Amino acid sequence: MTIITSVDVVDVRFPTSLTADGSDAMNKDADYSAAYVILHTDQPGLGGYGFTFTIGRGNEVCVLAAELRARPLVGRSVEELVGDLGGIYRELKSDSQLRWLGPEKGVEHLAMAAVMNAVWDLAARVAGKPLWRLLTDMTPEQLVDVADLSYVSDVLTREEAIGLLAELAPTRAERVERMAASGYPCYTTSAGWLGYSDEKLRRLCQEAVDAGYTHVKLKVGANLDDDLRRLRIAREVIGDEVNLMIDANQVWDVPEAIEWVKALAEFKPLWIEEPTSPDDVLGHAAIRRAVAPIGVATGEHGMNRVLFKQFFQAEAIDFCQLDSARLASINEILTVYLMAKKFGIPVCPHAGGVGLCELVQHLSVFDYVAVSGTLENRVTEFVDHLHEHFVEPCVVENGAYVLPVAAGYSAEMTAATLEEFAYPAGSYWAGAARRA
Amino acid sequence: MTIITSVDVVDVRFPTSLTADGSDAMNKDADYSAAYVILHTDQPGLGGYGFTFTIGRGNEVCVLAAELRARPLVGRSVEELVGDLGGIYRELKSDSQLRWLGPEKGVEHLAMAAVMNAVWDLAARVAGKPLWRLLTDMTPEQLVDVADLSYVSDVLTREEAIGLLAELAPTRAERVERMAASGYPCYTTSAGWLGYSDEKLRRLCQEAVDAGYTHVKLKVGANLDDDLRRLRIAREVIGDEVNLMIDANQVWDVPEAIEWVKALAEFKPLWIEEPTSPDDVLGHAAIRRAVAPIGVATGEHGMNRVLFKQFFQAEAIDFCQLDSARLASINEILTVYLMAKKFGIPVCPHAGGVGLCELVQHLSVFDYVAVSGTLENRVTEFVDHLHEHFVEPCVVENGAYVLPVAAGYSAEMTAATLEEFAYPAGSYWAGAARRA
Repeated sequence: MTIITSVDVVDVRFPTSLTADGSDAMNKDADYSAAYVILHTDQPGLGGYGFTFTIGRGNEVCVLAAELRARPLVGRSVEELVGDLGGIYRELKSDSQLRWLGPEKGVEHLAMAAVMNAVWDLAARVAGKPLWRLLTDMTPEQLVDVADLSYVSDVLTREEAIGLLAELAPTRAERVERMAASGYPCYTTSAGWLGYSDEKLRRLCQEAVDAGYTHVKLKVGANLDDDLRRLRIAREVIGDEVNLMIDANQVWDVPEAIEWVKALAEFKPLWIEEPTSPDDVLGHAAIRRAVAPIGVATGEHGMNRVLFKQFFQAEAIDFCQLDSARLASINEILTVYLMAKKFGIPVCPHAGGVGLCELVQHLSVFDYVAVSGTLENRVTEFVDHLHEHFVEPCVVENGAYVLPVAAGYSAEMTAATLEEFAYPAGSYWAGAARRA
Repeated sequence: MTIITSVDVVDVRFPTSLTADGSDAMNKDADYSAAYVILHTDQPGLGGYGFTFTIGRGNEVCVLAAELRARPLVGRSVEELVGDLGGIYRELKSDSQLRWLGPEKGVEHLAMAAVMNAVWDLAARVAGKPLWRLLTDMTPEQLVDVADLSYVSDVLTREEAIGLLAELAPTRAERVERMAASGYPCYTTSAGWLGYSDEKLRRLCQEAVDAGYTHVKLKVGANLDDDLRRLRIAREVIGDEVNLMIDANQVWDVPEAIEWVKALAEFKPLWIEEPTSPDDVLGHAAIRRAVAPIGVATGEHGMNRVLFKQFFQAEAIDFCQLDSARLASINEILTVYLMAKKFGIPVCPHAGGVGLCELVQHLSVFDYVAVSGTLENRVTEFVDHLHEHFVEPCVVENGAYVLPVAAGYSAEMTAATLEEFAYPAGSYWAGAARRA
């Protein structure tokens, strides 16, 4: 029997604010960070790794919350844990005192994501499989057993969920082959940060097209004249065949969103992302009706499955951008994928940040193989930075994520990274404090 | 000039789980707690006091979040702060790194509530007025200047908000007189906790009627047979004239809520409170349509003004139960009151917990005097415990909150309470650790 001997939660921060990477209309000074969970076991070489992503200050609050949330794992049998991945999720979630602090939202939910991501990583390592494979080897019933269907039975029953998965189960193998051959298509946001100069924007758009991307995304929403100029540059470079998406990072009220997006319509964006408050289901629905045929996308701040349920019910979005470190890991993400399937909405997961690309490649492959069965209207975000901090970084070739093969959820950071970027004691931050 | 010299945030916990006070279908072992903020100034005797309410474990996460959130206050001029209560709110809220952890929900929003409650308490003390008086002495323009109208302009513009307040401004004085004469009507939840025996329930219902209450609330949702028996007992004791409310504390999915509430319809509840996930606007709307004429109430876990906006837009609730320590203090609470006025929905604030009654008495008086102008269908929660820990506890007589007169937001705890119940170093908890 293998035992979880201890849990460490490390505050990891990267000084991305120095280069304006990640700058958008809402977030100007992000230091990309992670509350990074390590499940230690008494089996040499076996651990579980997971995290949630933040942008700097307050990461310590997530660290403290994850420490509290993970406490019941210590002393547990790994076999028991990975044998009932629905049970451990429900147990951790059922702490009514911690529940009060959400429920199922904000810091406590980010912490739950970090801890359960580590549990799923551990489960995949124990099985000797990449996470997508662990999931695609599960039967429809097994998958639905681990999915959290609470509060969504008005749109999706257990039987329906099994039925949706059963449809595609016989043909999973052929889609795995396709993934192995050509990977999962992605798009790049690296070109379009607000803090970049026009020259840099032009160069990065050209590089994106040259690298085989069919979709490019730009940040908008700080200044309309700037947006018009930047979108014109982007369209000049990428032409009419490449898709252009725009992302406002929640800066607008509903009427302003409608007006602004209409002013940018000439550049034919595929979607407007996060036009307003991520909580505003009815607001997104109103925007969608007003700006069609431009699509509405949101989800990176989508707090839980109950919110996504309503986005689907209200026909408020065209693209679902769930976040792998904000939803409570596979148990809740499965539910969102299943609802998206039922309502016919493509899931294009949010990524970037720290390690989100490493996680979502597994999710997208799983979706294609076992849930949606199609790549139509689907493209997963890719941002090309900070991958060097991971032991098994994602690989992108010809505008597609290469199918990951290593066991786990690709979530493990390197020892050198922890030594350098642990906050505030890591060598980078200690040095910065000395230099200041 | 007076300066804020430092901020303390104290983890205060009361061992309420020992007596089953506060037990409901979702929360069986609550230790009522507060992340309690003290703003110290260099003027002897002047401080600001505020808190958010939690139910035990995880309170330390809120404490850490409140420490971070309050940091920009240290060194500030008190005069500047209280002279621009909208400005300081927007400044604290604008921290984009902390915003990422919500936005405007969960632990970070609870922390914002605690800090801004202390700022408003300080402002009222500086003015030498109880908070309700500070607010009712402000002009419509001044009130709207401090209200957070971001993300709600699709339902409420600044001009509309001023107009709503201007209507009632000339007659505020007469309603203040009525409040001074007879107080603000309240109802009691003290009778109905799930953990109480039938005998205790019967006795407490009788005591409630004898004390002049016209509304009594019971917890439901754990077991239908128990609910039927307990509601029968309650109706026997209180008769048909007294209103009976029921509260499920979020235990049901939407279809189950509809079925269960219909099974209890014979007892003619005035409202069903928290029938399902507090995030489920469309779910509440579906329940409301199905169980009418039983009303639907929610709000104690209502995370922010964007959620309440949608409850109003979707005609999802009959009663709005905003929470004084979950919304971001007066700046956001004002917005919810103004939207409720526009949509014609009565606000019956959530209270109980630790010190929530002390806060909401100010809110309800303000609402009556300056916003709604009516008591129709309005009744504010009162739970009779833990008041002894406050320097100026609320007073209830004849089923009504007596108009508070002391300067401030009634939020200050006694020194003896902090000495005894600070966690884990206070004398009670240190003693409990020794006894264990």
